[in-house]
Amino acid sequence: MKIFYVVYSLSLLLGLICVIIVIAWNTCYRGGFAWDGTAKMFNWHPLCMVSWFVLYGNAILVYRLPFTWSSSKMILKLVHAILNLGALTLAVIGLLAAFGFHNKMHIPNLYSIHSWVGFAVVILFSLQWLLGFLSFLLPCAPLWLRAAYKDVHVFFGIFFLTMTIAACLSGINEKLIFVLNGANSSVPYKELPPEAYLANVLGILLLCFFLSVTWMLYKREWKRPNPHTSVLSEATEPLLSEH
Amino acid sequence: MKIFYVVYSLSLLLGLICVIIVIAWNTCYRGGFAWDGTAKMFNWHPLCMVSWFVLYGNAILVYRLPFTWSSSKMILKLVHAILNLGALTLAVIGLLAAFGFHNKMHIPNLYSIHSWVGFAVVILFSLQWLLGFLSFLLPCAPLWLRAAYKDVHVFFGIFFLTMTIAACLSGINEKLIFVLNGANSSVPYKELPPEAYLANVLGILLLCFFLSVTWMLYKREWKRPNPHTSVLSEATEPLLSEH
Repeated sequence: MKIFYVVYSLSLLLGLICVIIVIAWNTCYRGGFAWDGTAKMFNWHPLCMVSWFVLYGNAILVYRLPFTWSSSKMILKLVHAILNLGALTLAVIGLLAAFGFHNKMHIPNLYSIHSWVGFAVVILFSLQWLLGFLSFLLPCAPLWLRAAYKDVHVFFGIFFLTMTIAACLSGINEKLIFVLNGANSSVPYKELPPEAYLANVLGILLLCFFLSVTWMLYKREWKRPNPHTSVLSEATEPLLSEH
Repeated sequence: MKIFYVVYSLSLLLGLICVIIVIAWNTCYRGGFAWDGTAKMFNWHPLCMVSWFVLYGNAILVYRLPFTWSSSKMILKLVHAILNLGALTLAVIGLLAAFGFHNKMHIPNLYSIHSWVGFAVVILFSLQWLLGFLSFLLPCAPLWLRAAYKDVHVFFGIFFLTMTIAACLSGINEKLIFVLNGANSSVPYKELPPEAYLANVLGILLLCFFLSVTWMLYKREWKRPNPHTSVLSEATEPLLSEH
């Protein structure tokens, strides 16, 4: 378990560094943050989306932390749901920041493949949250359906994280092209000014964070052991029947 | 297994449609293909990279096909290695097409986050191929190392596929911004001309292909059963000792 904690600490550090870099990028090079429809309002978009991604990755990892294994599974489910609700809130604020800026500047919404993938994953992520809440925390679905949905929930949890990293990377690429190749820039993207280096490195660190999270999910020996309950009862234990 | 074949047929169809769309896009809107350093040379880049991605996904799936389960594991390993070598060849041609165009046009190579991720994954993919060949087909590594590497090989096989879809989506985004927002375009990307729709739909279909492949990999009941050999012997059975 020592190796797990090394990888986990690394993932926490990577997540933190990514959030710091996206704040530094938008503060030092993009004029900082405001909620006024200008480019400063748009700057909340990358910050919220990177923070969403990092919080989302950590929410998935809750079940992998050995010090939580003595806790009730229901408490872990609640922590998982609350962290993901926080992540969803960040994602929605991130969308509002982009839409608010576009609307004020009369730029159409949702035309690029970045925006199609990003918008789709926010909608799908919120549906997954709702279905997870109804299935695993409230007893709204029959037992067999909850057990069957558990596998689907786990798979799409990782799949949507994959869509999010793809949206983050294409978003960084798009933003750098727009601002560095635009009329107000003295050095284009292709000449790799310091801002481009910083944001490219952010992309690589986001990918490293994704690597560390998915590696911890992949390792069978790091999964939460469950000697007392079957997979079926774990998946189906509802909130309202918790003792 | 009926559901497996439905999903598998769907993934084949999606892969085929993606290749057809990327050919149609570059033929109808980008002037077709040539190997002369012009934009027509660059057009090989998206075609080769999309084809690499599709072939790579299919190479991973070789072990999941029920009709191959009666074959020797060694034959499957060879088919997997040959398909991935074909995929790697496409990736290298795709890189050469981009570099050739950039060099002729005096555009720097490897400055965008798209190119960093894409170039890195081609290098890592080729290293993975070499390590896989040395470890699982030739007896160049001790038994314990081969068994330990199998898990790593499988994980990074899927991780590099994830990097590839991220590179594909950011590449489509980048290309559409460059050509539709450039001086030679009458309708910018944000007004979604037919070319933008077509390439965005390509991105979504690539994501659907990725979804179908990862879903087939995820389902435990679709894994190749191995009643006669242990995991250790499967991972370590070398080419040179094959009967």
